[in-house]
Amino acid sequence: MGDDTSAMNEQQQPTTGALPTQPQLTIAEAAQHLRAGDLTSVALVEDCLQRIAQWDGTLQACVTVLGERALAAARAADEQFQNKRTRRTLTPLFGIPIGVKDLIETAGIRTTAGSRVLDDWMPDEDATVVTKLHTVGAIPIAKTNTHEFAWGVFTPPTRNPWDMARVPGGSSGGSAAALVAGICLGALGTDTGGSIRIPAACCGVTGLKPTYGLVSRAGIISLSWSLDHAGPLARTVKDCALLLDALAGHDPRDPDSVEVPLLDYSAALAAGRTPEDAVRGTRIGVPTTFFFNDLDPDVEAAVRAAIAVFERLGASIREVALPPELDADFFTNCYRAIQRPEASLYHHEMGWATERADRYTPATRASIELGAAIPASVYIHGQRMRQTFTAQMRDLFTEVDALITPTILIPAPCIDALDEPVTIDGRAEGKGYALLRNCFPFDISGQPALSLPCGFTRDGLPIGLQLTANHFNEATLLRLGHAYQCVTDWHTRQPHAQA
Amino acid sequence: MGDDTSAMNEQQQPTTGALPTQPQLTIAEAAQHLRAGDLTSVALVEDCLQRIAQWDGTLQACVTVLGERALAAARAADEQFQNKRTRRTLTPLFGIPIGVKDLIETAGIRTTAGSRVLDDWMPDEDATVVTKLHTVGAIPIAKTNTHEFAWGVFTPPTRNPWDMARVPGGSSGGSAAALVAGICLGALGTDTGGSIRIPAACCGVTGLKPTYGLVSRAGIISLSWSLDHAGPLARTVKDCALLLDALAGHDPRDPDSVEVPLLDYSAALAAGRTPEDAVRGTRIGVPTTFFFNDLDPDVEAAVRAAIAVFERLGASIREVALPPELDADFFTNCYRAIQRPEASLYHHEMGWATERADRYTPATRASIELGAAIPASVYIHGQRMRQTFTAQMRDLFTEVDALITPTILIPAPCIDALDEPVTIDGRAEGKGYALLRNCFPFDISGQPALSLPCGFTRDGLPIGLQLTANHFNEATLLRLGHAYQCVTDWHTRQPHAQA
Repeated sequence: MGDDTSAMNEQQQPTTGALPTQPQLTIAEAAQHLRAGDLTSVALVEDCLQRIAQWDGTLQACVTVLGERALAAARAADEQFQNKRTRRTLTPLFGIPIGVKDLIETAGIRTTAGSRVLDDWMPDEDATVVTKLHTVGAIPIAKTNTHEFAWGVFTPPTRNPWDMARVPGGSSGGSAAALVAGICLGALGTDTGGSIRIPAACCGVTGLKPTYGLVSRAGIISLSWSLDHAGPLARTVKDCALLLDALAGHDPRDPDSVEVPLLDYSAALAAGRTPEDAVRGTRIGVPTTFFFNDLDPDVEAAVRAAIAVFERLGASIREVALPPELDADFFTNCYRAIQRPEASLYHHEMGWATERADRYTPATRASIELGAAIPASVYIHGQRMRQTFTAQMRDLFTEVDALITPTILIPAPCIDALDEPVTIDGRAEGKGYALLRNCFPFDISGQPALSLPCGFTRDGLPIGLQLTANHFNEATLLRLGHAYQCVTDWHTRQPHAQA
Repeated sequence: MGDDTSAMNEQQQPTTGALPTQPQLTIAEAAQHLRAGDLTSVALVEDCLQRIAQWDGTLQACVTVLGERALAAARAADEQFQNKRTRRTLTPLFGIPIGVKDLIETAGIRTTAGSRVLDDWMPDEDATVVTKLHTVGAIPIAKTNTHEFAWGVFTPPTRNPWDMARVPGGSSGGSAAALVAGICLGALGTDTGGSIRIPAACCGVTGLKPTYGLVSRAGIISLSWSLDHAGPLARTVKDCALLLDALAGHDPRDPDSVEVPLLDYSAALAAGRTPEDAVRGTRIGVPTTFFFNDLDPDVEAAVRAAIAVFERLGASIREVALPPELDADFFTNCYRAIQRPEASLYHHEMGWATERADRYTPATRASIELGAAIPASVYIHGQRMRQTFTAQMRDLFTEVDALITPTILIPAPCIDALDEPVTIDGRAEGKGYALLRNCFPFDISGQPALSLPCGFTRDGLPIGLQLTANHFNEATLLRLGHAYQCVTDWHTRQPHAQA
């Protein structure tokens, strides 16, 4: 496996059924072993590269594998670990292999955005989030696949490790699939309409979309500048907190980056000595409308069971009625009015829409053309709807500390059945809508949202729980999510156990 | 003169040359007299009504005169002044006649927005700024004329009291003309592209456009929701400070209203015991580009002389180079991309653009149609230009405390010559552009801007000076402007002296 080469199908793998994965360490566990000296970063990186060689031919989670670079960085990291004086100063991400969504620019490393439009593009500079990974000594191990330009939630040709006949979700599908296969211990994703949380839910991992403006988007290929968020995916809430500690912070290169005091997010997890301490008295709202409509019955059962877990831990569970105007039409019209023209303008400004139009997939090209035809009045109306909704949600989060909903309405769909409609909100909708519908409201409001595993369907497919909170209240989500993972083991399950 | 009637041409007046006005008290002076008991609010209101009867037939500053209402309010105010216990608790605006731009909604009082579209409209509720006037006991004396829907800077048919053959500027032209004639002691205006500062400069009064979000726009007919500002016009900076004390503050009815700690703006004027104390060490920037290009020579001479006054008072005057991309094309493209579609959408949402299309003037109707044809990409690009510019201006105001520029490039133009082009920035432009060009950049950035009189042309027409500062630094502008008015007397001149 050479440096910066595309993953090759080196071994024949199943294309249906579960990928027989091996257990992988969490970031927190690996960090302990590295510090204790009973694991080396080189061994960790070699293990990840071995998994890529073994599985990624069929899984297709990685667009570019950073083998030699990652090994060189691991050797340098191990030198630091061997130095007793420096060892104590190293962060928990030091020497840890991380997957980087291929929408995120990496200096001197091909960045394709999952599109033929950019299949020959080599950025000069790292995105700010990649610089931040390097600063704390984390090791990019692979560029992970994304739905073309993050404009979709299926991420072809990546497969879902729980059932190789199904999609991994998207658009950060490569990051989520790679985590399940143990190809990386943490990963970077982006979320414009749900693209961190949807693959996290489809693949049974944990994903956090932070508050708008908390994590820089500088150097990340844009889908929709006023909706784009960057954030972490990992196996556990604790690992997401460790990644957020490294990623958060003001960046003048992103005009919408905000200057807020930084918190120690991983320390916030230890706020309660026990899960009960962490949850007791927290007001958790359960919407009576919209978010629980038209669910797959297994999804609903798992989420209701998760609510009961929080109740047992001492949370104050409250039914919450959203304003009646907040229905499917409201969210869809608002999201489309903003996302479509912003995305179209970006592709025109970059020159791709004109100079490389023939290299897009037909669906993306059609979306770009549609976006260019939208009048300013529609966009402005969408931004005003957004302002109204955001104010309503800000008010709602004075009554409850967090809101609990399913992340996605159905489990990960089969690749062969993506075109079959589902009935949601009284309409025949595509499968993508069933994945997006509960997620994008929180991209519109810019509020933080965490997806974490909360069970499995009868077919053995992961189910995701979404926790949301008011702007900059990531600590609340991480504290609740960590407590939940302390008393449940859904996040520790692996595909091979289901196979 | 009955209540709520349109002003009638009761007396024949000159239509060229100066209006032979009589001196009027400032708000601060009137407040002292009212407190001392040697003036009554009724006498003040009667004087204003007498001036309306005498002059407004030709001046046409007032759309609706609130004679009986104002007298009733004045009688009630005088009762309070006669009560020794309450007298001390009354604010400086108590019993003071104020003009209200007819773009601002008044409960049960016709609000026309200067347009035939609304010539029969009677709002149910007061705008927040009107409620705030009532709260402090100020007395609305007249609804003052506005350019149709604030979409222009000439305010027909209102005339300029300094030369009745000229326009008063706009769109708050009625407010400025009424102040000069002593029809009111203070006035409310709005400013989307310069509509407070332009008439202030054309008419030789003082006008403050506050920081975006500091003064509520709830209940004000919108021109462009992300550019609209409301603020005071008055004879002096001190009076503007008194009005801002009453007007500023968070309002949940305006979604863009901000929650910032309120300052005592009039107290900020007394920061220095002498004008030198107030100005000494203040860093005042003078742009070397754009804002000083293509000025009328008399305007340039007066503004340079004002800069010398600030220098004598101890300011540190610094030449400031703006980024070279900030040229006429930048500002014009940015402003139009935002203002046109926002305005068009508003008129469509209100139903006027369809139901009452034939009642607009042709220019406004054409603008509405143009705005509806603008694609979202143009609007989004405009908002991104705005974001870049605002960040640049925020940086600039770390190097200087205030920026000094002319408010308008030429004196108030003649009504007969509005169509003659002027050459500005190498292009043949309409007269309106010469009035708008130095003002609208600060609507785009949302930073506060104060216009105050700084001299006269050889033809006896007022010249305006613009001071701008960083967001929410109104106190700096008011402090500087007040110090300037302590050592100059331009703001005390009246048309009759020039006649």
